[in-house]
Amino acid sequence: MAQVIADRRDIDFVLHEQLQIEELSKHERFAEFNRKTADMIVSEARNLAVKELLPTRKPGDEEGCRFENGKVTIPECFHKPYRLFMDGEWMAMCDPAEWGGQGMPASIAQAATEYFNGANYSFMIYPRLGHGAGRLVETFGTEKQKELFLKKLYSGQWGGTMVLTEADAGSDVGALTTSAVPNGDGTYSITGNKIFISAGDNDLVENIIHPVLARIVGAPAGTAGISLFLVPKIWVNDDGSLGEFNDVVCTGIEEKMGLHGAATCSLSFGTKGKCRGTLLGQENKGMRAMFVMMNEVRLLVGMQAAACASASYLNALTYARERIQGKDLTEKSKDAPSVPIIQHPDVRRQLMLMKTYTEGMRSLLYYVSFCEDRIRVSNDPNEKARYQGIIDVLIPVAKGYVTDKAFEVCSHGVQVYGGYGYIKEYPQEQLLRDCRITMIYEGTNGIQAMDLLGRKLGLNKGQSFKDFLSEINKTVETAGAVKELEKFAADLKNAVKHLADSARHIGATAAGGKAMNAFAFAHPFLEAAGDVAMAWMLLWRAAVAARQLEKGANKKDKSFYDGQVKSVQFFINTILPVTLGKMAAICMTDGAAVEISEESFGGK
Amino acid sequence: MAQVIADRRDIDFVLHEQLQIEELSKHERFAEFNRKTADMIVSEARNLAVKELLPTRKPGDEEGCRFENGKVTIPECFHKPYRLFMDGEWMAMCDPAEWGGQGMPASIAQAATEYFNGANYSFMIYPRLGHGAGRLVETFGTEKQKELFLKKLYSGQWGGTMVLTEADAGSDVGALTTSAVPNGDGTYSITGNKIFISAGDNDLVENIIHPVLARIVGAPAGTAGISLFLVPKIWVNDDGSLGEFNDVVCTGIEEKMGLHGAATCSLSFGTKGKCRGTLLGQENKGMRAMFVMMNEVRLLVGMQAAACASASYLNALTYARERIQGKDLTEKSKDAPSVPIIQHPDVRRQLMLMKTYTEGMRSLLYYVSFCEDRIRVSNDPNEKARYQGIIDVLIPVAKGYVTDKAFEVCSHGVQVYGGYGYIKEYPQEQLLRDCRITMIYEGTNGIQAMDLLGRKLGLNKGQSFKDFLSEINKTVETAGAVKELEKFAADLKNAVKHLADSARHIGATAAGGKAMNAFAFAHPFLEAAGDVAMAWMLLWRAAVAARQLEKGANKKDKSFYDGQVKSVQFFINTILPVTLGKMAAICMTDGAAVEISEESFGGK
Repeated sequence: MAQVIADRRDIDFVLHEQLQIEELSKHERFAEFNRKTADMIVSEARNLAVKELLPTRKPGDEEGCRFENGKVTIPECFHKPYRLFMDGEWMAMCDPAEWGGQGMPASIAQAATEYFNGANYSFMIYPRLGHGAGRLVETFGTEKQKELFLKKLYSGQWGGTMVLTEADAGSDVGALTTSAVPNGDGTYSITGNKIFISAGDNDLVENIIHPVLARIVGAPAGTAGISLFLVPKIWVNDDGSLGEFNDVVCTGIEEKMGLHGAATCSLSFGTKGKCRGTLLGQENKGMRAMFVMMNEVRLLVGMQAAACASASYLNALTYARERIQGKDLTEKSKDAPSVPIIQHPDVRRQLMLMKTYTEGMRSLLYYVSFCEDRIRVSNDPNEKARYQGIIDVLIPVAKGYVTDKAFEVCSHGVQVYGGYGYIKEYPQEQLLRDCRITMIYEGTNGIQAMDLLGRKLGLNKGQSFKDFLSEINKTVETAGAVKELEKFAADLKNAVKHLADSARHIGATAAGGKAMNAFAFAHPFLEAAGDVAMAWMLLWRAAVAARQLEKGANKKDKSFYDGQVKSVQFFINTILPVTLGKMAAICMTDGAAVEISEESFGGK
Repeated sequence: MAQVIADRRDIDFVLHEQLQIEELSKHERFAEFNRKTADMIVSEARNLAVKELLPTRKPGDEEGCRFENGKVTIPECFHKPYRLFMDGEWMAMCDPAEWGGQGMPASIAQAATEYFNGANYSFMIYPRLGHGAGRLVETFGTEKQKELFLKKLYSGQWGGTMVLTEADAGSDVGALTTSAVPNGDGTYSITGNKIFISAGDNDLVENIIHPVLARIVGAPAGTAGISLFLVPKIWVNDDGSLGEFNDVVCTGIEEKMGLHGAATCSLSFGTKGKCRGTLLGQENKGMRAMFVMMNEVRLLVGMQAAACASASYLNALTYARERIQGKDLTEKSKDAPSVPIIQHPDVRRQLMLMKTYTEGMRSLLYYVSFCEDRIRVSNDPNEKARYQGIIDVLIPVAKGYVTDKAFEVCSHGVQVYGGYGYIKEYPQEQLLRDCRITMIYEGTNGIQAMDLLGRKLGLNKGQSFKDFLSEINKTVETAGAVKELEKFAADLKNAVKHLADSARHIGATAAGGKAMNAFAFAHPFLEAAGDVAMAWMLLWRAAVAARQLEKGANKKDKSFYDGQVKSVQFFINTILPVTLGKMAAICMTDGAAVEISEESFGGK
């Protein structure tokens, strides 16, 4: 039967053959997560996703959220899966058991996250935000805060949010004006208006815990004066019981292009002067707290997008296998029968693009989680630091590049369906609409590109970027020893060299007083780095597959492994030449975009 | 004041400075269309677009179309502009005066078409389809058919459609099963079910004339047995009066990703055996008739997309000038004020992409229309054939490449707005949604790519493609004589050479028994050809601008002309290196996408 959401064979391949996550279970921390357990977890997640979440994707999009009489109603069909999510304890997969978490490796959780988000991304906003608030409490909270909030957040009994944005403080968080005044009893009075708050209000949970960025009166301007507060919708008494309404009012929800089932709320704090919060972490260190969470959040956004892409790919694949239209291109006879469109070369080209990106993105995202797991089980501070540096370098790629490409994949997914791709009867157009937000939120992809160029290239004096490249070269070496991959390995090695040259060149341009010119190529550089990362993952996969083919594989496995070799062949011979062109442009670092006068853009 | 929809200065530049359309008025046919008249037409079109059409774009999207009790209701706000369209005689701008047309050059009409579609693409579906049906009647109709239908279609009193697609006959039109049985009185009984019929039913007009593709009973299979019929919704008596209902039933409308104001209908013909039509043109020549219309229709689709892109660009530009967010990148002081985001390099990069594509696409589309005008005024059959060949080569680029790029531009238009780009309060997300259909309908872009590679490269034994390249080289020569453009001219010349090489290579691959491999690169080849066409148009523009700058221009004009030089600099130094990479991949013509087994795509 046709698979939906994500290809299980491919997920198993990444977990067990490419990353060999079973290694993790040799360490005490993950001792219970042997292969059997891992497979069971993935199977259960898939089951829940396919049977309970997927059927709510379209109805949730159609029903959307409503805002009436100051209350937010989310799609009715989300309530049942939310209860199942709570019952199955899926909210806090990687977190400590003492707070209700499952303590599993991040790489295994990634597979579950992929199934869930691919099944219903809008729905997943609710568990994800509750968990995110919990992570903040776990990381920065006092014992009392943990006691009051943490289990309820990690169980899903209460929801959570992430309250940053204001109308005039979006990408520039430091411009926010929401204020906090100490009340003298350890609480603060919070006043301000926030927008774009996902899950900011909803009828799923009895209480919502808002981590709110605000400025304590008298604090410095900009990001240096921002603190983080825990602000419950309904006050939580010292004994954990619910108190009075805490003056957090939802003033409206956004009508959006997609993600209709996820309520995007405007919230007013303290319009009646009665909104209280407690400091989470230290005064004026709110931005730092956000930064600690940032990798996790951005990796998740990459997965939200990749999951849409994966679902779109599998749908397109099934459609292309079943849709009969047109004759075989090489067929001369007029009486020849029409064929499934998967036989047409341009459809195959699109499916190959979708396949290679879907698989490359999956490997990359799981790999980042696997690095996190390696850090967790390692006792070697150098090894930990090395993996952390690689993660830090890869995060802007995992968010910025992956969401860009996932959107393209979803667009191909519409295209393969032809006219049917554009209508709501089929799932493809919703996946495209939903996916589009991932390029924007949690730091626009322009900001991801700046992060890579401005922070990550020079991280640890450039060592982390070098470590990233040397990991690639390890794969190049392994693959280079396989005869049929020799050419691809050499091509990737060459691309890595060009990427290093581009990095040096763009870095020198920035340092040489032409920062504006350099940063006008931040996004092309992100693209080039992402392309190389994809090629790396695909070559790695092909090297594993080639080894298995050599050993001999059963028919079904052989098809799968052959597909891995074809993927790297396609990517290296079709995409990587274009990447080299991108790098040539980067090394030219043309100044037109920054030199052109504002008037010359026209429009007046 | 900020311009909306399209930049008037740029339109004037294309019409009068780049193409110098006033030349056309030296010919008798277009004698009345001197510069003053042309400007007046464009001004009136802009006026109508800005004042009457644009305010209905968002309400039309929100209200959408309804299907109740077998009747289709379109957005209420479309009725007034439709009457104004009729009153202003905008339906048939280029058609003969004897049938109510305005007889204007296609290049001038292109400007009006751009304003109208940029203002409200959904609305424009109704006048456009009525006019399209009229064009078929004018071209293939008998005197009687013209007398009965043509003025009413060209005036907009009656609407029209284009009825091709069936559930199992989309891209493969030849698979259609709708049948026509001669009644012996010159009429045919039509029976069949059609889908995706734009404007198939609506409450704007008292009658709708459907040109329907059907197969006369006993006709050959495939496209060779398809005939075209005129099938009115309400029968038209011999004296022109309306007769009885003609058994054309709308059975539903599609819910779509965008274009909500345009009714996409399923139509059943002859469910009660009472649907009659008359043959339009010759028996079994229906597909040929469609082909005659195809250039016009596909060029229009390119303009629909480019108009969305232009509107998105101007919106993004205005937003970027007004939105204050973040400090200047090179600013060291913490107390420095925040700046408009147009000062940030990645925003500029995106605006430059939007500008160069918008302007390049505009020039290309107007140029194709201008070639049509040149054919109309020429008495030299060689010249006519040469221009027709260039048009034929450019049509797949004008449809396939332009719609691909317009969608990308609209996506950048969302991105520049950040979170605001994703919400319905702002226009950007609708432009992206609306634009997406252009890549699919009137021949998917995959089909456009096949058309370029399979038909157009070899057209007139390859002469037409050579003529296209030699037109580019004329511009290269002119621009090469301008010192500051010398480098760009040389780069474009090099790209043209590579494009010719790619064409030869891919042609030889196809001819050498590897047709599947070659056609897997049909779309990349379309992209490469399109990139080169953009660079051509931008270099042509810059050459004109440089000449004006040399002469000395006032301050505002100087900004504009400077912007033209910056555009070609940006495109040649930033995009064209990537194009060379694409051509390198084409010349490799890797076979992975066609060699991979169906099983190896996975998903089972």
